[in-house]
Amino acid sequence: MYITQVLHRQIQRAANDCAVVDGDSRLTWADLGDRVQRFAGAVRALGVEPGDRIGILARNGAHFVEYVLGTVWAGAVINPVNLRWTVDEIAWSLADCDTRILLIASEFAPLLPELRAKAPCLKHVLAIENHSSDGLVPRSEWFGIANPLEDALRRDRDLAAILYTGGTTGRPKGVMLSHANIVCSAMGTLTQPGCRPQATFLHSAPLFHIGGLSGLMIALFAGSTCVFVPGFEPLAVLEAIAAHQVTDLFLVPTMLRVTIDHPHFARFDTSSVQGIRYGAAPIDDSLLDRAIAAFPHAAFSQAYGMTELSPTCCLLGPEDHSADARIDGRGRSAGRATSVCEVRIVNAEDEELPRGQVGEIVVRGPTVMQGYWNRPDDTAHALRGGWMHTGDLGRMDDAGYVTVVDRLKDMIITGAENVYSSEVENVISTHASVGAVAVIGLPDERWGERVHAMIVLRPGMQADATSIAAHCRTALAGYKMPRSFEFADSLPLSGAGKVLKASLRQARI
Amino acid sequence: MYITQVLHRQIQRAANDCAVVDGDSRLTWADLGDRVQRFAGAVRALGVEPGDRIGILARNGAHFVEYVLGTVWAGAVINPVNLRWTVDEIAWSLADCDTRILLIASEFAPLLPELRAKAPCLKHVLAIENHSSDGLVPRSEWFGIANPLEDALRRDRDLAAILYTGGTTGRPKGVMLSHANIVCSAMGTLTQPGCRPQATFLHSAPLFHIGGLSGLMIALFAGSTCVFVPGFEPLAVLEAIAAHQVTDLFLVPTMLRVTIDHPHFARFDTSSVQGIRYGAAPIDDSLLDRAIAAFPHAAFSQAYGMTELSPTCCLLGPEDHSADARIDGRGRSAGRATSVCEVRIVNAEDEELPRGQVGEIVVRGPTVMQGYWNRPDDTAHALRGGWMHTGDLGRMDDAGYVTVVDRLKDMIITGAENVYSSEVENVISTHASVGAVAVIGLPDERWGERVHAMIVLRPGMQADATSIAAHCRTALAGYKMPRSFEFADSLPLSGAGKVLKASLRQARI
Repeated sequence: MYITQVLHRQIQRAANDCAVVDGDSRLTWADLGDRVQRFAGAVRALGVEPGDRIGILARNGAHFVEYVLGTVWAGAVINPVNLRWTVDEIAWSLADCDTRILLIASEFAPLLPELRAKAPCLKHVLAIENHSSDGLVPRSEWFGIANPLEDALRRDRDLAAILYTGGTTGRPKGVMLSHANIVCSAMGTLTQPGCRPQATFLHSAPLFHIGGLSGLMIALFAGSTCVFVPGFEPLAVLEAIAAHQVTDLFLVPTMLRVTIDHPHFARFDTSSVQGIRYGAAPIDDSLLDRAIAAFPHAAFSQAYGMTELSPTCCLLGPEDHSADARIDGRGRSAGRATSVCEVRIVNAEDEELPRGQVGEIVVRGPTVMQGYWNRPDDTAHALRGGWMHTGDLGRMDDAGYVTVVDRLKDMIITGAENVYSSEVENVISTHASVGAVAVIGLPDERWGERVHAMIVLRPGMQADATSIAAHCRTALAGYKMPRSFEFADSLPLSGAGKVLKASLRQARI
Repeated sequence: MYITQVLHRQIQRAANDCAVVDGDSRLTWADLGDRVQRFAGAVRALGVEPGDRIGILARNGAHFVEYVLGTVWAGAVINPVNLRWTVDEIAWSLADCDTRILLIASEFAPLLPELRAKAPCLKHVLAIENHSSDGLVPRSEWFGIANPLEDALRRDRDLAAILYTGGTTGRPKGVMLSHANIVCSAMGTLTQPGCRPQATFLHSAPLFHIGGLSGLMIALFAGSTCVFVPGFEPLAVLEAIAAHQVTDLFLVPTMLRVTIDHPHFARFDTSSVQGIRYGAAPIDDSLLDRAIAAFPHAAFSQAYGMTELSPTCCLLGPEDHSADARIDGRGRSAGRATSVCEVRIVNAEDEELPRGQVGEIVVRGPTVMQGYWNRPDDTAHALRGGWMHTGDLGRMDDAGYVTVVDRLKDMIITGAENVYSSEVENVISTHASVGAVAVIGLPDERWGERVHAMIVLRPGMQADATSIAAHCRTALAGYKMPRSFEFADSLPLSGAGKVLKASLRQARI
């Protein structure tokens, strides 16, 4: 199985059909094929060998498809950068896996001096624009003269992507996904009811995340036209739907909310939308009701998973979004195992639990990652017994529906981004005045959860929210920043000395 | 990717739903799971190690599912026997890949002495019936006492099946298919429009053939109930459709014809049928028209491929069975590459030809076989350049539709069985009176093609059709036997000395 197969196939069957829409620019599949082959030729000319990593620091757009397919066409490995991270975090993720080439949009050029200093592995930094005034190699130079390359045909367990995700302890981890991981994940979704071939798919979720990336893969394998907006912005999404008769969308709940709540929603013709897939965070009934009312022709489906699962392990299909499904509780679940993987609920000894009992959700199958880059111990721990341990707690009913009830990992999901409490706590605790800290997620109408910090100052020391926020800002991406601070005399501890976060959280809802 | 995943998944989500219907007997997924685990335990107890081959000599039925899934659950490799072959051919196929265990239905017990003599590799011959009066080990003995085995979890490129197919020269070849080959082939079909999950699938095509076997895999992956009849017989098919509200069928054109032409067709309620997949041989417009009229609620789709492709490389979906599709010619094609593979038309130098030009159909992707058992030269030849060379000649239009126009291999398709002319010619030419022979396929209303032999006797020698047929009968399976003989003074030869079969055939249509 190889990712480039989608391109071979689409060029063959639909060479002159529209593959990509990005603003005023349109590419046919033949155009895209030409670009991908030349991209691969360009990076090969710069010394990229099969297995090498290539990064990108840019918003969504046609350049992203060229980058993803061109990189794997050259046999290399994508390592897209999370735009929400600090320079420090970005540099660390590039350096960790020895990324040699970085594509960059000019708007991010100001980060370069610090990036180069902290990630000396970077040999070539290439602009995605044809003209560049920031000392970057403009696209016209590195791409314009490139010769097309033959498909390196990497496949199966060959590495295709390294995607960095926040870690429970300290630094992000590089999740290694193979060609088979990514193709199988797309197949798992495409074999479900409710997937339309040859659709028009709007990509507004960030493509550096596995959610957006897998949406791209599903769209490509379905032979759909891919419409891009630079990033999620509700007005841009509504305009794109109306302008391009978009049929399918992938959104996280926060995006869905702000789209349907947009004051100009009714001005746009959104009747073309036939399928909305949502995921990456839980959704509540009232939002789903309003979304169903806003997009009355759309079949809704929910994807549950994580980067380590490429990402989907469970799907809740359109048939489970009925009123009946809500009454019997299945409509509130994360759905059932896709057609390519197995899901189980296990106890701490990895024994499968009887239905209805809460335990850890574990997954086995061809979509389970190859491991964490350069972290054999973390890999062995996550994949113990041949099953990916998600760190989520859930239960399963007699028909295999999985309901996620809590997270084993101390993690907050805010606007579909995962924030590990420990990472934020580690930063806050380095403030000279802080004695103890607990970071929890509190319900938030817009973001699902927001990051909340409870702080106990050292005896005799003084600090306020402003000074602690300032301390955090250099080390933490914006979405990881606490939205609220609370100062207390002490934190409630369990008998074993652990902070009782559940009760902290409960008292604040 | 592993075949056993379907069973794990179905047990989890539908343990008490009906998995198998075979006459009066019904099995739930839990029952099937129990049987598969015990089957695996039984063969392991008999010394079967992962990678070992297990054969079966039986008609379709619940025992076949248990055999297929139980064998791969034990980590072993299925080698089902073509029931239409002579004892000699069967023994050869078992011995060629060193099959140690053979399951057998009592009705085939009379073949055993000769089989054992010619295939001394057979260590255990096990009856599929609980009681056996033929000196076989009855099922109650070998299965009844077995302990369930854990899934050996063979996967990806691990071997799952060896399926013997007729060879152009002499003996059949063992096509090696991996777990990934078989799972990917099912996915390729299931990602196409027109596949219904949780259907009721009637398996009447022989399961020892890749067509029937892949129908079984597709049904299992779709979570469908599998209904079995012992073999194709039109009345049994009609009865099963009506009795079990069958929704989906796989048939070869000959089967479709005799089913809809059956004098009692109208007596049965066949309105439950929603999907008919046909393949393994071309279909003509008039048959398709009558089939569409006979099954008005059914979406028709055509699968094109071969054992070496696990088997499907092209699909012609329901949307291409419209009146429009027939007018533009696509309705007469074999369809387009499935979502998992690539198809090309190449010349003798393996260069891709411009659209519309006739060349050899070649295929690349995860459904291409691992090779021919113990035949590295044949494997290298068939898979040269990384593409499976089908031996079929075809052309492709601008949208990727492939039309098969002829066969490079000198092969006759009769009732969906492949007969290699050379094999029949080799047998006939060993008759003492025969000087030269050419075997060709002639159009046949019922079988698509029939085997026709043209014979030139040695000077001064005498022989008639009866004596040559008698000579053939010991060496050739019934379906390979010439249906008609013709005696001539000479055969037309090309300048290179090859028999001009195309002109022989043309003159006789």
